[in-house]
Amino acid sequence: MTGRLFIVGLGPGPDRWIVPEATAALEAASDLVGYQPYIDRLPERAGQSRHGSDNRVEIDRARDALAMAADGRTVAVVSGGDPGVFAMAAAVFEAVETGEPVWRDLDITVVPGVSAMQAAAARLGAPLGHDFCAISLSDNLKPWDIVERRLRAAAEGDFVIALYNPASKARPNRIHQAFGLLRAVKAVSTPVAFARAIGRPDERVVLTTLGAADPGTADMSTLVMIGSSETRFIERSGERPWLLTPRTYGAGR
Amino acid sequence: MTGRLFIVGLGPGPDRWIVPEATAALEAASDLVGYQPYIDRLPERAGQSRHGSDNRVEIDRARDALAMAADGRTVAVVSGGDPGVFAMAAAVFEAVETGEPVWRDLDITVVPGVSAMQAAAARLGAPLGHDFCAISLSDNLKPWDIVERRLRAAAEGDFVIALYNPASKARPNRIHQAFGLLRAVKAVSTPVAFARAIGRPDERVVLTTLGAADPGTADMSTLVMIGSSETRFIERSGERPWLLTPRTYGAGR
Repeated sequence: MTGRLFIVGLGPGPDRWIVPEATAALEAASDLVGYQPYIDRLPERAGQSRHGSDNRVEIDRARDALAMAADGRTVAVVSGGDPGVFAMAAAVFEAVETGEPVWRDLDITVVPGVSAMQAAAARLGAPLGHDFCAISLSDNLKPWDIVERRLRAAAEGDFVIALYNPASKARPNRIHQAFGLLRAVKAVSTPVAFARAIGRPDERVVLTTLGAADPGTADMSTLVMIGSSETRFIERSGERPWLLTPRTYGAGR
Repeated sequence: MTGRLFIVGLGPGPDRWIVPEATAALEAASDLVGYQPYIDRLPERAGQSRHGSDNRVEIDRARDALAMAADGRTVAVVSGGDPGVFAMAAAVFEAVETGEPVWRDLDITVVPGVSAMQAAAARLGAPLGHDFCAISLSDNLKPWDIVERRLRAAAEGDFVIALYNPASKARPNRIHQAFGLLRAVKAVSTPVAFARAIGRPDERVVLTTLGAADPGTADMSTLVMIGSSETRFIERSGERPWLLTPRTYGAGR
């Protein structure tokens, strides 16, 4: 078995945030496998096959990729962001766990990348300068009660919270429920940022507070950042404030 | 005021994990500012000044960089990993907050990067495939009781936990205390990984469990990953197992 499988992330959008190892894997691959819009972003190359698929078929896509690699191909599974963070790496290893025994002998390389919360943090200032957590609000694959348990724990630990997948057409109410829960346990003055499509032409940032926020601002391209008790705005004249979570905790209290 | 300030991360180690925007900023800068070992990693360039400094002087370094940018220079503050995650971005914005009012008018760009937990996750499989949190064990700038509160909350929320700065010469006991706390509230069978210097020549990975782990395995170059109740090993013959936190939660229970 001489095939290889790379799991690669395209970052949050622009090419300037794609690591060189990902670019090299995309160039070397005989086969590209991924959600069609990601495949469409990549240039066509002679001798390279492209296998685009629908959203929500991650496990089938992972199995196809593993089967191709087991056939001796050099396969790149293409993901958004960092493939290890709410993306394709987990789907591929789930497929390995339940799939053909020979898949465990494959040479699989996950290439790390820039995830949406990092692009959002970079654009906003330094909101992730201290301890934080990342929670996906999608309840396709987990019960909503574990999401609520995690939101409560994140508030109890006074973490900065990065919310992924805050909205879906099927469940538009989840982000409203999440804000309702957090408003009951965190200060309403807590800074909140809606960071949409950071790095892409349709980028948009909304800065507000937990109390004043309209949770409906979040769409499927939005990363929602909710501060800790230490997170604050740095005001500027004529410009959007910066958002800072300092490295110190509890200073002056 | 025409100066610019870039805050740039070199990633966990190898050049293949440095995003192109960071490389471009490092090339364009008139001045490089950073911890001396990071500056030493960069090639010397004609006309570019290098300002290396000691560890633990982050805020002085940030002020120097801001002053140079305010003088019209193009300054790159060089950080490890992602500058937004336990790194130089927070120090720079802290310096802005308490510094010269004109510093708020500066053009400051944070360039996102790959952080240590992402390199570790990539090497291990897919341990960050579900909700997770990142906690720095350093108590230089925060009281230890907030660290303990966050560890408890992370366990209560059943997050995967990435521990940064697990060891220091001054406080070698903190990682033992953290494991003691977590062993009292999480299953001793929980998978644990010590991921040291991932991507560098002295890389080393130790896979174990919460109950069996020797916390002293962690040094200052180690990222410690502690699973959720769903995290598990995928066994392989003759190779290190992969580590997976699946996208589903509570399946089969």
